[in-house]
Amino acid sequence: MNQSQLENIIREKQSFLCVGLDSRVDLLPASVGNRVEDLLEFNKKIIEATSDLAAAYKINTAFYEQYGTEGWGILKETLELIPDDCFTIADAKRGDIGNTSSMYARAFFENMSFDSITVSPYMGSDSIKPFLEYGKTVIILALTSNAGTVDFQHLESSGKPLYQHVLETATGWADTDQLMFVVGATRADHLQKIRSIIPDHFLLVPGVGKQGGSLTEVSKYGMNERCGLLVNSSRGIIFASPGEDFATAARNEALKLQKEMAQHLI
Amino acid sequence: MNQSQLENIIREKQSFLCVGLDSRVDLLPASVGNRVEDLLEFNKKIIEATSDLAAAYKINTAFYEQYGTEGWGILKETLELIPDDCFTIADAKRGDIGNTSSMYARAFFENMSFDSITVSPYMGSDSIKPFLEYGKTVIILALTSNAGTVDFQHLESSGKPLYQHVLETATGWADTDQLMFVVGATRADHLQKIRSIIPDHFLLVPGVGKQGGSLTEVSKYGMNERCGLLVNSSRGIIFASPGEDFATAARNEALKLQKEMAQHLI
Repeated sequence: MNQSQLENIIREKQSFLCVGLDSRVDLLPASVGNRVEDLLEFNKKIIEATSDLAAAYKINTAFYEQYGTEGWGILKETLELIPDDCFTIADAKRGDIGNTSSMYARAFFENMSFDSITVSPYMGSDSIKPFLEYGKTVIILALTSNAGTVDFQHLESSGKPLYQHVLETATGWADTDQLMFVVGATRADHLQKIRSIIPDHFLLVPGVGKQGGSLTEVSKYGMNERCGLLVNSSRGIIFASPGEDFATAARNEALKLQKEMAQHLI
Repeated sequence: MNQSQLENIIREKQSFLCVGLDSRVDLLPASVGNRVEDLLEFNKKIIEATSDLAAAYKINTAFYEQYGTEGWGILKETLELIPDDCFTIADAKRGDIGNTSSMYARAFFENMSFDSITVSPYMGSDSIKPFLEYGKTVIILALTSNAGTVDFQHLESSGKPLYQHVLETATGWADTDQLMFVVGATRADHLQKIRSIIPDHFLLVPGVGKQGGSLTEVSKYGMNERCGLLVNSSRGIIFASPGEDFATAARNEALKLQKEMAQHLI
C-alpha cells in the first residue's frame, strides 16, 4: 500500500490508528497459552478484532527477534494475517552502509512484504537510500519519545536541534509520498515547529495510550490536509484485558480511539 | 569473552584481526553451491581456515536476515562454529526505547550467545543501557566509514562534531571494559582526535582491506597499551578466491594481515 492508498483508508475507516503488535509471551492471556508459538494465535485474534478500526499495524521486530528463528517465523506469518486494507510497518530501526542496508531492505520488502520500515538516520543518506529503491515508504526516526532523546536529538547545531537537521536533510532524499517521520512529540510547541518544517509529510506518532500522549494535542497541531498522522497504540489495545475477553477488550479500546479520531478528522 | 580475555587472545595470536562473515550466496564458490543453506558450509570452511589468525569474527545480521528464518538459523549456527578463543560480534546496529532494546539484547545475548553487539546511538542512553546489563561488550557507532557520515555525524554542536558528543556522552554509561566504539576513521587526524577523547577504549575499525584503509596509519594513531584495536576485513578475506581454493586463499589473506599486525604489536 502506498501513501495515497493509506489516505483513502484513513478517510474510509475514519481512523488514523496504528495498532502496535508488541506481543509478549509473558503477557498472553491464559486462554491463549504461554508458548512462543501462541503469539501467532494471539496476533490473529487481535487483528481480526481490530482491523476494521485500524489504518495500520506496526510490528516491532525486537519482540519477535528475541525468540530467534521461531520468532522470525511468527513475525512473517503475522504480517500475512494483516488484511490488505491496512498499511503495514516493520518497526525495525535498521540502518547500515549502503550495500548492507540493501540487504535489510530485501529482508523486509522482498522476503517479507511490508509497506514500510522504520530506519535510523545516524549513518546518513547512503544508509537510507537502498530502502527507497523499492518505491515503498521509509519512516525515519527524527524525534523519538524516550528519555534518551535529550542525549543527541536535541543537540543544537547552527541554532537547530539534530532532529530538525534530520527532517530538513532527509526530505531531500525522496518525494514526500515515500517518506514518513517518527515524531514522538506530543507537546504542542514541538509539533508546531515540526509541522513548519515538514507541512506535508506523514508522521508516525508513538506514545499515545498507555505511554501517555494526548490525541487531542497531536491532532490539533500535527494534522494536515492529508491527515498526515498515524498514531500508534500498542499495550493499551492488545493487552487491554488479561482474560479470555482480550480480543473484545482490544476492540473496545481501538473503537474508543477510532471514535475520537473520527472527531478530529472532520 | 570479555575484553581482558580479548587482550590476551590478541597477544597470543599476535593479531587484532576481525574477520567479517559478510557471506553472500551470489558470491559463493561453485564448489560450495549456490543455495542459502550452503552459506553455513562456506562459513565453516572460512572459520576453520582462519580462526588461529583472527582475534574476532563479526557477523553482520543483514546478510542473514535477508533470507528470513532460514538466514537466522544459519546466523545462529555460524556463531556456534566459532571457537571459544575468538571474540564474537553481532554487527546488528540495533537501538530502540528501553524495553524494546531489552528484547534485542535478549536476541543476541540469550537466544544467541554473542560476546558483543553494535548499536546505534541516535535514541540515547536508555536505548543502549539494556544491552549493558548483560555485562558483555556494547559497541557504539561513533564515526562510520560511509559517505553519509557527513550528513549528521560531522554536524558541529558547541564546537564539536556529533560523533565526538557520542564518544564523550557514551563513555559515561559504562566502564571502559564494557564499551567499544565503531570508528571508521583511517585518517591520522581523526584517529588522533578520537584517541585524545577515549585513550583507553577498544575501537572497532571497519574499512581496512578491500574498502581501502591503511593498517599502518590505524595502528600508528589508534593503538593503545591494551592494543585497543579490532580491525575488520570481510570481502578481502572471505572472497579472496572464487575457486575451490577459497579457504586457502582466505587463510593467505588473513595471514598477510596477521603478520603485518604482529609487526605493529611490538
